[in-house]
Amino acid sequence: MTAPEFGAGLWNFATYVDRYAIDGYGQPRGTLEQIDLAAEVGDITWVDLNFPFSPGVSLDDVKAKLAQHGIKAIGLTPDIYLREHCKGAFTNPDPAKRASAMAIMNDAANAVRELGAKYVKIWPGQDGFDYPFQVDYRELNRLAVEGMRELASGHPDLKFVIEYKPREPRTHMFWSSAPKTILGIQQMGVDNVGVLLDFGHAMFGGEPPAEAAQMLIDHGLLWGMDVNDNYRGWDDDMMVGSIHMVEIFEFFHVLKVNNWEGVWNLDQFPFREDAVENAKLSIRFLKAVHRALETLDEEGLAAAQAKQDALGAQRIIQEALLKSMAVDL
Amino acid sequence: MTAPEFGAGLWNFATYVDRYAIDGYGQPRGTLEQIDLAAEVGDITWVDLNFPFSPGVSLDDVKAKLAQHGIKAIGLTPDIYLREHCKGAFTNPDPAKRASAMAIMNDAANAVRELGAKYVKIWPGQDGFDYPFQVDYRELNRLAVEGMRELASGHPDLKFVIEYKPREPRTHMFWSSAPKTILGIQQMGVDNVGVLLDFGHAMFGGEPPAEAAQMLIDHGLLWGMDVNDNYRGWDDDMMVGSIHMVEIFEFFHVLKVNNWEGVWNLDQFPFREDAVENAKLSIRFLKAVHRALETLDEEGLAAAQAKQDALGAQRIIQEALLKSMAVDL
Amino acid sequence: MTAPEFGAGLWNFATYVDRYAIDGYGQPRGTLEQIDLAAEVGDITWVDLNFPFSPGVSLDDVKAKLAQHGIKAIGLTPDIYLREHCKGAFTNPDPAKRASAMAIMNDAANAVRELGAKYVKIWPGQDGFDYPFQVDYRELNRLAVEGMRELASGHPDLKFVIEYKPREPRTHMFWSSAPKTILGIQQMGVDNVGVLLDFGHAMFGGEPPAEAAQMLIDHGLLWGMDVNDNYRGWDDDMMVGSIHMVEIFEFFHVLKVNNWEGVWNLDQFPFREDAVENAKLSIRFLKAVHRALETLDEEGLAAAQAKQDALGAQRIIQEALLKSMAVDL
Amino acid sequence: MTAPEFGAGLWNFATYVDRYAIDGYGQPRGTLEQIDLAAEVGDITWVDLNFPFSPGVSLDDVKAKLAQHGIKAIGLTPDIYLREHCKGAFTNPDPAKRASAMAIMNDAANAVRELGAKYVKIWPGQDGFDYPFQVDYRELNRLAVEGMRELASGHPDLKFVIEYKPREPRTHMFWSSAPKTILGIQQMGVDNVGVLLDFGHAMFGGEPPAEAAQMLIDHGLLWGMDVNDNYRGWDDDMMVGSIHMVEIFEFFHVLKVNNWEGVWNLDQFPFREDAVENAKLSIRFLKAVHRALETLDEEGLAAAQAKQDALGAQRIIQEALLKSMAVDL
Repeated sequence: MTAPEFGAGLWNFATYVDRYAIDGYGQPRGTLEQIDLAAEVGDITWVDLNFPFSPGVSLDDVKAKLAQHGIKAIGLTPDIYLREHCKGAFTNPDPAKRASAMAIMNDAANAVRELGAKYVKIWPGQDGFDYPFQVDYRELNRLAVEGMRELASGHPDLKFVIEYKPREPRTHMFWSSAPKTILGIQQMGVDNVGVLLDFGHAMFGGEPPAEAAQMLIDHGLLWGMDVNDNYRGWDDDMMVGSIHMVEIFEFFHVLKVNNWEGVWNLDQFPFREDAVENAKLSIRFLKAVHRALETLDEEGLAAAQAKQDALGAQRIIQEALLKSMAVDL
Repeated sequence: MTAPEFGAGLWNFATYVDRYAIDGYGQPRGTLEQIDLAAEVGDITWVDLNFPFSPGVSLDDVKAKLAQHGIKAIGLTPDIYLREHCKGAFTNPDPAKRASAMAIMNDAANAVRELGAKYVKIWPGQDGFDYPFQVDYRELNRLAVEGMRELASGHPDLKFVIEYKPREPRTHMFWSSAPKTILGIQQMGVDNVGVLLDFGHAMFGGEPPAEAAQMLIDHGLLWGMDVNDNYRGWDDDMMVGSIHMVEIFEFFHVLKVNNWEGVWNLDQFPFREDAVENAKLSIRFLKAVHRALETLDEEGLAAAQAKQDALGAQRIIQEALLKSMAVDL
Repeated sequence: MTAPEFGAGLWNFATYVDRYAIDGYGQPRGTLEQIDLAAEVGDITWVDLNFPFSPGVSLDDVKAKLAQHGIKAIGLTPDIYLREHCKGAFTNPDPAKRASAMAIMNDAANAVRELGAKYVKIWPGQDGFDYPFQVDYRELNRLAVEGMRELASGHPDLKFVIEYKPREPRTHMFWSSAPKTILGIQQMGVDNVGVLLDFGHAMFGGEPPAEAAQMLIDHGLLWGMDVNDNYRGWDDDMMVGSIHMVEIFEFFHVLKVNNWEGVWNLDQFPFREDAVENAKLSIRFLKAVHRALETLDEEGLAAAQAKQDALGAQRIIQEALLKSMAVDL
Repeated sequence: MTAPEFGAGLWNFATYVDRYAIDGYGQPRGTLEQIDLAAEVGDITWVDLNFPFSPGVSLDDVKAKLAQHGIKAIGLTPDIYLREHCKGAFTNPDPAKRASAMAIMNDAANAVRELGAKYVKIWPGQDGFDYPFQVDYRELNRLAVEGMRELASGHPDLKFVIEYKPREPRTHMFWSSAPKTILGIQQMGVDNVGVLLDFGHAMFGGEPPAEAAQMLIDHGLLWGMDVNDNYRGWDDDMMVGSIHMVEIFEFFHVLKVNNWEGVWNLDQFPFREDAVENAKLSIRFLKAVHRALETLDEEGLAAAQAKQDALGAQRIIQEALLKSMAVDL
């Protein structure tokens, strides 16, 4: 297994608001400043950027800033979850809102093309519903699938990834799990839409991330991933490895045995923490995971799994994981 | 909407053990005694029977007992989750155990044919895993899909329904959600396998049951259903309507607007309650739901849903639901 | 049971931001505008106001506006969860931040005195922690208890209520449950600190709200309450009665049998809904609950509860609840 | 920190039934056989025994068997959760059932005295309720507290520990959390009742186990503990360290800094696993935790906690934990 490349959603380096701290957990930061912080981490060579960029920042500005640091754009994430689309982007009941969301996404797609990024990341956070009886589920599905098909069909040279998540900001998001997203992509009948698996979203949704990863790989749809951590009950976007060391180790193990090659990408919201230190510690842990994968007794583990021997597997994986920092970092 | 027919899993009338009350919550009851109790409820015209029947009870005994009460078998549920198959039926790592499970299911299928029941209900409760790293997920999927294909292919004249559930008795069951089950059925490439949706399993798994029902209907796979209630965190199998009145009302509304015709089937475990009274009260509530569906302002609701107007929908549905017992029952 | 008086946190009539819709779910509204909206509901006679008021609004302005509508202040909720105190108010590790939080709360207390409101409501949303190993739990407890004691001791003529909640915005809030809050109040050794029970917070924390209410009443500490609804996994602050009709009915039943007299207060966040209609529908449902309480067979219910007869109780309470809108509203 | 002594609930070495595998996950094992298996683990010097012992086994038999292996009884756990008490032991609505439960517990207390064990462990698994409106919460509290007071008062020379748990087998258990149990013990007004904290029960109930431990220590009530692991949504009683390595490390760290001296006791249900290997692996992990505690930079951690510096703390604790097996085991 070659050394992984690390990336980060640029929002790892933003500041945040929530419904209580409405004045924000810190001074707002612009796109370029966020890229500077990403570079300060030292191991990040890819970033996923929110689009549009912050006011006054052009595509050329971004290119220049990325070039300055030797960082590449892995993708863009269009902002289709702001006030204008708070009742949905693809599934908004108002055709005009659907159209304005589509316009933003088309612009993002064009910017992805110009940047030579790997994908347009679609996170339709406001697509879904909140209350029982609020929607006609068949119609919701139709809008979600047809909209995505239209978008992807308009840019056959690009790749699109859907990032699913069970809930937040809606109480129920439309793209909520790996298998539901696979079914929707089948319905689209296009070949340029895949999935970005967020480790924390899977955990939060009760899907073992390793199992979800295998399922997506087996359908040829695991085109990107984000890592972080949480307490399983919410998308806390915490530092990688701070809670679920075993399950994230298993997740990367599945990627390894499938020869999945892609960026190990951070998606964290350090509300009250230092963003650079947060990313540094996450990557420090991910390097430990990588070392553990290199020392793991794969033969022994495969034998245990062939017998579905839970304890045999635990013995082997603890042996690797709990020695993973016993070298100079 | 015509008056529904009511049914029940025969285990509604059994007694139970768990890991604490190992001497059981009551004296064991045989199959025939359970049928007598089902008949005592007064509205039950269909039963789903555990198979094999209790010791000493033949298929002819069951036929006679059902005939005596004018009750029909909706399906049989083979016991593939006992000690012999506690590490799995289809996905057991031991081929001999898989074979013995298959034998039980083939016997059940033959009995379904003899009884003229609607389906063989497959609930592979022990198929799955408990620990991270315990299984190779691709292999687990292969075993689950191939086994089910083999079973169904052997009985092309019969229908099989898979009842999915997120967990218990395994910490992770293989057939865990509606979309995952749909994907697995696609992989089987057979046309006689569908899904039985258990309301409580969907709730417990974070799937709105109404949305899951619509998804299954749109894939042509909603072939059966069970109702009960729980606190969302476990499959409590409580009395219908005791907790989630609104969401079960929505579930039946989706069935109604899709003209789904099938038995309203109870799946409850009254550990400490009187089984007959439990079923009676559940059916009393279901009849109230049925009345509420008849008085529901469908036009107004459709208009609200077209706008995804959560409050408009709530106003309309409360109007129907909160009057539903205002008639003589 | 006399007809209840209805109240609302003024934030029911605000607009909101979250970490995604950072431009807000609507145009910001000032304190006075929010009072106008509360008045528009028609049944609200009490409001709980965020403090400080919106920029440029004086205490006299608020008094005048309340008088105009015949609305009284039930309490004030000081803003101790903004950026300045995002690492805590009472439990902030920085003494200067603790002092600035105390200053806001003292100002709020003085305003409560001037308004003749019932209580100062303390919701220390940022007090707690996010990560394992982040805090010394004994020290956290000391800061939380001593700070609250100091505040309450400085205003012996006023009442203070703590609103507990398990989490959000911290992954773990300090005042997280009814019994933990009771223990903390005991440690304070003051007699002017009680509890405000939020129905949704209790649900979200796995506490049956009715049981929590009884516990607080038995300790003489249930001094206020807020109602709303959610899906048990988060503080969704949805419309009352939209999900958990039975449990909110039980909650009010406990209040009734204990002769608890107080305002039925709304605490909802209608992110995407019309705030006035949301409050109207909630109150419509609460009036139905009140009617159901009046027709409830209390004698029969008490007899069932003496036997811990779950089904007997269900039969009786459904009878009342499912007829509760069968009158002109 | 001295090397810990290890113990185990004897049920770690039993076999189990649940509501599906009603023929059990293995052949039943008697008390003496279970002790032999405990001894086979090699590090276990204490056991907590279910009482009464299995049929035909006397107190003298047990004493002899324990002596043979050099194992001591830490406590006895009376069986007050079988069929006879399936509607409650202390809180059963039937006085005769309460009396029969009391008789079992008095017998257990006498056996504890004879064995010289540390405590009678009370786990009233069937005390609580299942449905809304089922009980009068004040009465339930009265029965729970008065019964426990009566029991403890009858044996002033012995210690009793209550093991709380949020749910299972009831949907709501009475002794459900650390602070609620503390409040109940206060109401008893006795000095020989304390608490046994089960790591998994705290996790499952949303209480950080480390915080619960500190709270109990600060109330002088942490008299025993059990460890295991789960997925936070149920009491899975899995192998220690298999899921939540960080939080169990934090739990033991709190014990260490408080100089808590007591047995590190296993409470696991290896349904499908080898019981001896399960205990061996758990203890192997616990020894790694102990080593990590010895190398932990306590000064640095205390400095981080004084600032509530989550990342600083993570850096330090990962350093210790992820090297903890880098020695010969």
